[in-house]
Amino acid sequence: MLPQTLVPYIGLTAAFVTTLCWLPQAFQIIRTRDTRAISLPAYAAFACGIALWLVYGVALGDGPLILANTITLALQLTIVGLKIRYG
Amino acid sequence: MLPQTLVPYIGLTAAFVTTLCWLPQAFQIIRTRDTRAISLPAYAAFACGIALWLVYGVALGDGPLILANTITLALQLTIVGLKIRYG
Repeated sequence: MLPQTLVPYIGLTAAFVTTLCWLPQAFQIIRTRDTRAISLPAYAAFACGIALWLVYGVALGDGPLILANTITLALQLTIVGLKIRYG
Repeated sequence: MLPQTLVPYIGLTAAFVTTLCWLPQAFQIIRTRDTRAISLPAYAAFACGIALWLVYGVALGDGPLILANTITLALQLTIVGLKIRYG
């Protein structure tokens, strides 16, 4: 079993990774201007879902939830904007 | 302000949307066999991050966290597998 003191750090690392992982996707699109394989319904729905996580974080006054989802939402809206622009 | 009774439903809806939104991305790749615009580092990192969320959910014994991240991980590993296959 996991030592209980490790558990919050696993959650923090998970939040860090699932937030910043979208940077290479955004950079690849900016570099190549290719978004053909990107699913607009998937990314639009993901952005809406992240916005709901942000509302949830604000309602709970949960700092890490607010921070992680604000950054993820900004990255996702960037990718959705690039998808709409490049098609 | 939001009625507090609504807050858990917002979290549930957020989890539902950010889990199932990857279905249209997976279906688009299966249909078109095109993954060129998909960033392998982004999706591989996202899958690792979701695996960490799953470990976190198991450590906390949190059912919704376990369920949502198991489904998301399965969808992400499918997309990563398709990316590796189609390039």
